[in-house]
Amino acid sequence: MSSSAPIGIFDSGIGGLTVFSAIKERLPNEALVYLGDTARVPYGTKSAETVVRYSRENAEFLEGQGVKAIVVACNTASAVALEDLRQRCKVPVLGVVEPGVRAALAASSAKRIGVVGTRATIASDAYGLLLRDLHSGANVVSVACPLFVPLVEEGWLSGEIVEEITKRYCAELEYARVDTLILGCTHYPLLKEAIAKVIGPDVTLVDSGEAAAAALACLIDNEGMASSGAACGDRLYVTDVPGQFEAVARRFLGGMMPMVERVNLGF
Amino acid sequence: MSSSAPIGIFDSGIGGLTVFSAIKERLPNEALVYLGDTARVPYGTKSAETVVRYSRENAEFLEGQGVKAIVVACNTASAVALEDLRQRCKVPVLGVVEPGVRAALAASSAKRIGVVGTRATIASDAYGLLLRDLHSGANVVSVACPLFVPLVEEGWLSGEIVEEITKRYCAELEYARVDTLILGCTHYPLLKEAIAKVIGPDVTLVDSGEAAAAALACLIDNEGMASSGAACGDRLYVTDVPGQFEAVARRFLGGMMPMVERVNLGF
Repeated sequence: MSSSAPIGIFDSGIGGLTVFSAIKERLPNEALVYLGDTARVPYGTKSAETVVRYSRENAEFLEGQGVKAIVVACNTASAVALEDLRQRCKVPVLGVVEPGVRAALAASSAKRIGVVGTRATIASDAYGLLLRDLHSGANVVSVACPLFVPLVEEGWLSGEIVEEITKRYCAELEYARVDTLILGCTHYPLLKEAIAKVIGPDVTLVDSGEAAAAALACLIDNEGMASSGAACGDRLYVTDVPGQFEAVARRFLGGMMPMVERVNLGF
Repeated sequence: MSSSAPIGIFDSGIGGLTVFSAIKERLPNEALVYLGDTARVPYGTKSAETVVRYSRENAEFLEGQGVKAIVVACNTASAVALEDLRQRCKVPVLGVVEPGVRAALAASSAKRIGVVGTRATIASDAYGLLLRDLHSGANVVSVACPLFVPLVEEGWLSGEIVEEITKRYCAELEYARVDTLILGCTHYPLLKEAIAKVIGPDVTLVDSGEAAAAALACLIDNEGMASSGAACGDRLYVTDVPGQFEAVARRFLGGMMPMVERVNLGF
């Protein structure tokens, strides 16, 4: 695969832009093509079968754009569709679950690890299975936090309501005295401060998206796939452009905004 | 249209089951066919163009099932796709917006009317436009409440968090001293008690779904379309069956559960 080819990233929506940003920071010379399936978002409340079908269409679209690797930014899709995509795609496919798990195991001394994510990610137990697989003595507590995504999309990132909801979701994690917490959803890094405030300074927060960006950087380096020159423009594709799109996207991207184009998938 | 034909209802997901229940109560002798587009839920965060496309597919599916009338239970679809559907369908199509508006105008003495709904419903101003159209002096205050749907789906229907979120959303309505509040989203009737507690006993809450069921009963009666015998079984179609489906569906249906079948749309 030509080294000047772009890196593809897909997500169920715009939450994956936190992963886009993390990759951009690690690999500033790489051109990125992002696909957000905003017409069918969220994946976290849908069945594995449906998420696999959507993920295949997303990966096919990115391969059609000539990408040299695909990052599945969506935790739900990483949890349930990764193996399927790896068998179908001609380019390397990276998820966010394994990098998140490895980063958490490296950070945790007691191997008491918490995982927060959408209902589908937690129900799949993808993080728990891999944590116990890589460290048989790992003690894993997983909590689904369905209100975190709408809180982020509403822009409510601090204050009493956020704190009360976070307390409710974190009660079990505190009871289990986890020393490391995996943020297993692309939206959650925006609640990092609120979560840290509730769960305290002794718990290390691991952002799976950041861990995936680090793993991608290794892959690019190991395979000699690095771009030889400067990146020539990122592209952002979405399957729908809802009313609040730009405001929410800017929140995820810290202000910057690449060109956005709408595409149809699944028709 | 044969009077023994079923009545079709579609919604973006399972929230429309509150409308299904309201129709079932009003018209116990009618067979109902419900389609929930759970593979693409929610509509409330998507563009009008995308919601119209999905609504057409839903209505086509219901017409294919031989229904004698279609109720658009989804407020977002009622707000943006109703005219399009009326032009395309051979059977009468009812939305929830106009019945909700008429019920609110009948209930309100001061004509100071509040509307709560999803971001898309509120952005469309479908309720506000029709309220002012039917009563030129109407004073309308509309508030988008994106956290209400996930609260209902999480099953958090009372308690401190619900109260704080409701207070935040209702502040503007209280300031405007509305005497009537339209619950412009299928999920909101499950929060009726919490909303009533915050906004007080002097504000009449109008459930658009219930108002639509009453309007449908009139239509069936006026057009001589009533079923001649007892209903012979309702059908519930969904485009995805996610993990929590049955638990959430039962909450909406008050315990009962018709046969559920999965169908593919848009492929």
